[in-house]
Amino acid sequence: MKSEAGSGPFGGLSILEIADRIRKRKITALEVTEQALTAAHENGTKLNCFVTIDDEGALRAARLADRELDSGLDRGPLHGIPVGVKDVIATSGLATTMGSRHFANHVPMVDADVVISLRRSGAVILGKTQSHEFAYGPTGDRTATGPVRNPHDNSRMSGGSSAGSGAAVAAGIVPIALGTDTGGSVRIPAALCGAVGLRPTQGALSARGVFPLSPSMDTVGPMGGSVLDTAIAWWALSSRPGTNGVGGLEWNERFIPRPERAKNLRFARVTSDLLRRTASELINSAETVLEELSRSGAHVATLPVPEIDACWDPYVAIQSAEAFAIHSKRVDDSPELFDSEVLERLRIAAEVKGWTYVQALEKRRLLRVATLERTFSSDILVMPTVPIEAPAIGQRRLPPDSGWANPREALLSMTAPWSVLGFPAISIPVFSPCTDMPHSIQLVGKPGHETQLLDAAALLEVRLREKALTGA
Amino acid sequence: MKSEAGSGPFGGLSILEIADRIRKRKITALEVTEQALTAAHENGTKLNCFVTIDDEGALRAARLADRELDSGLDRGPLHGIPVGVKDVIATSGLATTMGSRHFANHVPMVDADVVISLRRSGAVILGKTQSHEFAYGPTGDRTATGPVRNPHDNSRMSGGSSAGSGAAVAAGIVPIALGTDTGGSVRIPAALCGAVGLRPTQGALSARGVFPLSPSMDTVGPMGGSVLDTAIAWWALSSRPGTNGVGGLEWNERFIPRPERAKNLRFARVTSDLLRRTASELINSAETVLEELSRSGAHVATLPVPEIDACWDPYVAIQSAEAFAIHSKRVDDSPELFDSEVLERLRIAAEVKGWTYVQALEKRRLLRVATLERTFSSDILVMPTVPIEAPAIGQRRLPPDSGWANPREALLSMTAPWSVLGFPAISIPVFSPCTDMPHSIQLVGKPGHETQLLDAAALLEVRLREKALTGA
Repeated sequence: MKSEAGSGPFGGLSILEIADRIRKRKITALEVTEQALTAAHENGTKLNCFVTIDDEGALRAARLADRELDSGLDRGPLHGIPVGVKDVIATSGLATTMGSRHFANHVPMVDADVVISLRRSGAVILGKTQSHEFAYGPTGDRTATGPVRNPHDNSRMSGGSSAGSGAAVAAGIVPIALGTDTGGSVRIPAALCGAVGLRPTQGALSARGVFPLSPSMDTVGPMGGSVLDTAIAWWALSSRPGTNGVGGLEWNERFIPRPERAKNLRFARVTSDLLRRTASELINSAETVLEELSRSGAHVATLPVPEIDACWDPYVAIQSAEAFAIHSKRVDDSPELFDSEVLERLRIAAEVKGWTYVQALEKRRLLRVATLERTFSSDILVMPTVPIEAPAIGQRRLPPDSGWANPREALLSMTAPWSVLGFPAISIPVFSPCTDMPHSIQLVGKPGHETQLLDAAALLEVRLREKALTGA
Repeated sequence: MKSEAGSGPFGGLSILEIADRIRKRKITALEVTEQALTAAHENGTKLNCFVTIDDEGALRAARLADRELDSGLDRGPLHGIPVGVKDVIATSGLATTMGSRHFANHVPMVDADVVISLRRSGAVILGKTQSHEFAYGPTGDRTATGPVRNPHDNSRMSGGSSAGSGAAVAAGIVPIALGTDTGGSVRIPAALCGAVGLRPTQGALSARGVFPLSPSMDTVGPMGGSVLDTAIAWWALSSRPGTNGVGGLEWNERFIPRPERAKNLRFARVTSDLLRRTASELINSAETVLEELSRSGAHVATLPVPEIDACWDPYVAIQSAEAFAIHSKRVDDSPELFDSEVLERLRIAAEVKGWTYVQALEKRRLLRVATLERTFSSDILVMPTVPIEAPAIGQRRLPPDSGWANPREALLSMTAPWSVLGFPAISIPVFSPCTDMPHSIQLVGKPGHETQLLDAAALLEVRLREKALTGA
């Protein structure tokens, strides 16, 4: 089947290039948004990556962006750029469904804090992207309005729960989109669809206005077609309004990732039992990346991190207790409105005991201390994002010899540990010569060090692009 | 039967009086400690209020106290004063059993922080007082070494879990003792035995070295024969070492409670459903107190606080989950070492669900906000400490018309809400003309305002003493 990957107007085009064209009057913000809307209606509908496409609101915002630029107000590179917002993130006046029939008619009165940040940057909210129902699943194929399809192969799952954001970005419909990541919900769809996805440090961004899954692990994270675009989104999300008096952000070039700065970082190849259960072709892709890093002059060590193998049980206990605390009343009052699989998972989550949760919180605290200690001499940890390629939509079993209970557990296995540990992590696509599906690599940074992480990701991206071009 | 109340060397004698006699060489610290040891062995044994009497350590500390005073080092009013320490609080080199056979042979290497504070004040640790097993019960009649007896009537329970501290102080064996209070474990034995007991603001004192019951509600609190003595203990516990260079505390007279300062405080008679289930004679005692406050010129309002009726469910959920998290391994490995009732309660606690715990934490947060708001115009809330007089040792039922499921639930009913809410509270004895058993009143202050609470308690104590003397 024909791949939709990169087929939209932003495939292969960076935000800085579009921003430059807008400022040189080669194109207006309105025209950019019109192209994105067309792609959203056409390619987006094939992929089912949008719940709501906000033609009217997007065109209005784009016209305003043009007027502001005409009047001399420049909010930075996102000014006039269309973006997608996951449908668990509140948008004022625009339906926000949580991927669920419970909220089929829900229209928030106010924006989530992260949406306010995007609007301050001048970004145009094109629409709301599909979420696995209530963000409770990494497969992206259980939403109130059907499964999201992988742009590289429409029969495969997009991954989730930020399914629509991953697919829309990978298809080039929008250059960036917001996701949320509790156990891996930004990184997994990024990995499966072939986009870049950043889970920031726990607590770095406000979660106000974001429908919770497991509040002690929930994060909002940007997804982009490139490391640069993702870094620009990170600038918008993590910056405070400047001194222009109208609440606009002020662009700061230091947010452009610098591959050369990353050459002095100490990289480490993570080893653990989890890695032994990873498909060999994905291990090979990771090794390719590590070789490229070495060739670039970076220092690459090998570091066993057994702590990540111990994160699964606390992850399940914490997420289960917190998630059911949020949904208990809905499960009592209107269970029929839930997707059957999500409902079944919630009923299992309800059984986790209070003391198990309390012990899991303490275990998490100890694992964080141990992992900080363990990784003290490394700046960036490297491992695959997921241990399998994208399964088929609806697939719920893996071969018995895969080592995984099911696709859900496999997809979350390598991302959830960093959620438990609260470290920032980024997934970057690695296109393998042996398959049509994207592979991916996960870089993990130290808490609070997203800038270093993005520098490292940029270094990697450059090396992989050069390798692809030269075939080296 | 003969009452042991106040029969020890410190019955009716304040710490300041003893301190004065020591400084005037009318008595040495060694002699004071010898008297206390004699009382601990005689009266204390009848009441079963000590697990360990540390003759050797106490005599050594007392001799040191005398030598320090001789050499000019004066640590303040507690210098050379014998004190009791609840047996869940670690004492270096001195057995600390938690009231349990699991720790029958446990000798800590280091002191709890609160014990260090006492030692810095020059206090002499006379011994370790009985705790209901693992501090998990308000009756004080389930410990590895038998029930603690009420000094006013040896056939009745002392209350708990700081059972031995309450009995030892009420018997005048020591002027002050340390307890711990999770749901009421300082205030309840103080109320039943006729002592003063202060639960400080949640988090005001370090819990390091204190065996946990429910860490998010555990506090350490002083018990004393009078408000003044309790305030002196509070000085020692809440002060930092002074500038004398040897880690000693520096006495500050502002810690002496000032009844006259309390006359400007706004008092409120708390009403709620709980109060309607309180025995009429205890309500009468509370009304007597409120009348005395009014006569003293204090402003007394009536304030419904329905929030305290809503605290029970979160109290049970939070304590259960946190307590079983601490004991799960012991319940698995050696259930036979637990007291049967404590084990049964732990098994029930194990069943609380994780989501219930998470919701209880949120409920607690909301109740705190609501109660702060509700009580904004009052400084001191007034209500009984417990709704019943001390039941018989081992009693597990109450009359069907009492309104309470059992003595445990009754004893905790009025103290646990303030634990959930994190407000400081003090229990003060009120001797009723109609009964030989002490009644009690609970004063509740605003978080962080122990000084006001102690001033108010002192005002009350003075008025009640004057009333008793004049028979007014």
